[in-house]
Amino acid sequence: MNICIYPGSFDPITNGHLDIIKRSSQLFDKVIVGIIQNPNKNSFFTLEERIDLIKKATNSISNIEIDNFTGLLIDFAKKKNARVIIRGLRAISDFEYEFQMASMNHKLDPKIETVFMMTNIKYSYLSSSMVKEVGLLGGCIKDLVPEIINDDINRKLRK
Amino acid sequence: MNICIYPGSFDPITNGHLDIIKRSSQLFDKVIVGIIQNPNKNSFFTLEERIDLIKKATNSISNIEIDNFTGLLIDFAKKKNARVIIRGLRAISDFEYEFQMASMNHKLDPKIETVFMMTNIKYSYLSSSMVKEVGLLGGCIKDLVPEIINDDINRKLRK
Amino acid sequence: MNICIYPGSFDPITNGHLDIIKRSSQLFDKVIVGIIQNPNKNSFFTLEERIDLIKKATNSISNIEIDNFTGLLIDFAKKKNARVIIRGLRAISDFEYEFQMASMNHKLDPKIETVFMMTNIKYSYLSSSMVKEVGLLGGCIKDLVPEIINDDINRKLRK
Amino acid sequence: MNICIYPGSFDPITNGHLDIIKRSSQLFDKVIVGIIQNPNKNSFFTLEERIDLIKKATNSISNIEIDNFTGLLIDFAKKKNARVIIRGLRAISDFEYEFQMASMNHKLDPKIETVFMMTNIKYSYLSSSMVKEVGLLGGCIKDLVPEIINDDINRKLRK
Amino acid sequence: MNICIYPGSFDPITNGHLDIIKRSSQLFDKVIVGIIQNPNKNSFFTLEERIDLIKKATNSISNIEIDNFTGLLIDFAKKKNARVIIRGLRAISDFEYEFQMASMNHKLDPKIETVFMMTNIKYSYLSSSMVKEVGLLGGCIKDLVPEIINDDINRKLRK
Amino acid sequence: MNICIYPGSFDPITNGHLDIIKRSSQLFDKVIVGIIQNPNKNSFFTLEERIDLIKKATNSISNIEIDNFTGLLIDFAKKKNARVIIRGLRAISDFEYEFQMASMNHKLDPKIETVFMMTNIKYSYLSSSMVKEVGLLGGCIKDLVPEIINDDINRKLRK
Repeated sequence: MNICIYPGSFDPITNGHLDIIKRSSQLFDKVIVGIIQNPNKNSFFTLEERIDLIKKATNSISNIEIDNFTGLLIDFAKKKNARVIIRGLRAISDFEYEFQMASMNHKLDPKIETVFMMTNIKYSYLSSSMVKEVGLLGGCIKDLVPEIINDDINRKLRK
Repeated sequence: MNICIYPGSFDPITNGHLDIIKRSSQLFDKVIVGIIQNPNKNSFFTLEERIDLIKKATNSISNIEIDNFTGLLIDFAKKKNARVIIRGLRAISDFEYEFQMASMNHKLDPKIETVFMMTNIKYSYLSSSMVKEVGLLGGCIKDLVPEIINDDINRKLRK
Repeated sequence: MNICIYPGSFDPITNGHLDIIKRSSQLFDKVIVGIIQNPNKNSFFTLEERIDLIKKATNSISNIEIDNFTGLLIDFAKKKNARVIIRGLRAISDFEYEFQMASMNHKLDPKIETVFMMTNIKYSYLSSSMVKEVGLLGGCIKDLVPEIINDDINRKLRK
Repeated sequence: MNICIYPGSFDPITNGHLDIIKRSSQLFDKVIVGIIQNPNKNSFFTLEERIDLIKKATNSISNIEIDNFTGLLIDFAKKKNARVIIRGLRAISDFEYEFQMASMNHKLDPKIETVFMMTNIKYSYLSSSMVKEVGLLGGCIKDLVPEIINDDINRKLRK
Repeated sequence: MNICIYPGSFDPITNGHLDIIKRSSQLFDKVIVGIIQNPNKNSFFTLEERIDLIKKATNSISNIEIDNFTGLLIDFAKKKNARVIIRGLRAISDFEYEFQMASMNHKLDPKIETVFMMTNIKYSYLSSSMVKEVGLLGGCIKDLVPEIINDDINRKLRK
Repeated sequence: MNICIYPGSFDPITNGHLDIIKRSSQLFDKVIVGIIQNPNKNSFFTLEERIDLIKKATNSISNIEIDNFTGLLIDFAKKKNARVIIRGLRAISDFEYEFQMASMNHKLDPKIETVFMMTNIKYSYLSSSMVKEVGLLGGCIKDLVPEIINDDINRKLRK
């Protein structure tokens, strides 16, 4: 079985993330959304909230699993029997950072491949921090996040 | 009346900023220098000091207004009846960040345009943080900031 | 009167160009579309065809003039009393080339400003050569060029 | 069956190409190496030579097919029942060009995905033109091209 | 005597740093490794540890001196009679930041040159923070840092 | 003796080139300006003219030699006993191309170093083709090329 991991903070999941998840789910037998738990970085949404938002947003996709990890991504991939790591590249992207990570992961385990998909250009300016920045300043985040979780996100942002 | 907003932290205003302000003032009926007040980011100069430095540095320009805002830039622009946001692009520039912001602002209100001017190349390596870094380490900031406020800035940096 | 020049080869005009023309026409009293005639570069469409396509595509915009020039852009701008040169920046853009041209033009005449607008992201992958490449290979160019001239362009591409 | 196309000029195939082909063949059921025949661009090696070199270099890979096409890549992909286009990204890469092509291909047929793999960094400076340039000037191309075809390529370059 | 300074945080020294030091020591009469002491930035390794690691890693190079500084790099260079500042550029590099620093340093003292060397591509994804990130998460840092200090670094990372 | 080679087409030499030559001549015992003779690329100025222009422009520099070569740069460097290749990086630069060339040259002979200097920012938009383009269209090239050869270049451009 061809399993891929789509790692990220998903703080929160955006339409750009969802686009990559949907497209990956067409190419691979199973997509594991791997939420990075970084004890040194504060997330705005708790792990439980982030899982919940992803679940709601992806409930029409059957070959998906949501999980979280600390430690090296490459170790998580091995544990989940995934041979592929999926990353979205935005035209507006930290391309160099991605290359650096992919090269390091290749060094740590050459049997696990990183493959990149171009984020749909209509989401090319989109990021989780942009969503939070706009939302916290009172801007409308409709069209930026999956409609089904728009209210949940707004509720937290407007607290 | 064709009003433009030139937003920024101006912490402090540099010769690069002043160059953009002067050139914008030739193209538009009025330039509003909009100081961003971000409650989560500490500025080195207080809001009052930053206003004061801009006032001194731009006192020969008549069609200018200095104001400050919290919240979304796009809301500030609407409040001030500005149709245009001005941004300087340095050869050495966070071009991608600017594109991301312009795209997001376009989404939030397509009637407000972001236009870019290339920073004069002689200021292309210049930024407010560079000025502070050099000044705090005892370097000479002459030619980096408007001459008329050179002493004011030095006084604060050398405290 | 605030006159701007939007220079280019327009071989042929695309939806990306039209987007910039429309938005410029809102900010300036008059937009002069300046077709570059480069005797050393062969265009696919003749000058007459290119003028004709631009005319059709922009017929709802009143403050527009279509002209062509050989020689330096800066000389053409002076002749037309334009103080501003408009350039579109695509996320996917030859940003550095634009900066180089703007710097050179600034050196040749500092009184003429180059201002940049971000191309609408939905056209960020679009260029005249892309249109020709796709069209000549039999692909559909709808949505890439203004609808009103779609047939004219196809007729020439499919000859 | 999950079929992918790896398109290119392969004029000639390099170690960078071979690396991508090998890794793709692990992820997909079948890899179709699609040689672009561009009637307007002269290739240094004839189509027959290029096919021959690829065949030799990939003879240990079983799930591979070598084919060539004119016209749109997307039409070739459809004809071959491929859902995926593979592209290698070099750290030193025309990333923007790739994004432009992927966006255009997405517009032409959103059901066909472009996925990117990072070229192994040890080949990140490598390109077919570099091989030809070095070889034609008498430099050693060992380590740049698959060893098994090193002599064939040298013979042609040194003619 | 042609003296050069190779400044950095070296927190810790990596194989990429060592590569630049070795190559600089061939071109200049003396290489001064200048450790930046930034009172506002916490380093993971103490100054003493960093000096110690560099000493061990470079013990086969004779024309080297290890020193540390606060304040402006350009003042340190003058104090040490160095005419040259060496910086490594990674393909994956903050090129623009380097250009900004070099331009600023040129303005502060045009008699001191910044020269750049390309980091060996096999270390192009490597940085001190990458080493710490991988090591702290339990990954193997062999091949990333000089072998002779591999254990010292691991001991601190695994505490 | 520390000899460096500064290779290029110099078609014609610009103020940017001259700036790099002067600064290199301070760091190395001897600078060899190496004019690339590419039989497949037409130069605007003949080899003799290019040599002549460089000679005039550099006549105040004593530790300089002007030579030309076909074939691999690395072979020319070896023949001239040069251990260093100098390249100028413009903020607006084909950085990636330079990295590619440096990596390839490193592979061909690791004993020869490529070192980079940042072009003075006031020449960062400058290139030989820009000079020719502006000059051929009747623009003023003063400040772009060394004053002493301004007339020679104009004479040829205005023929």
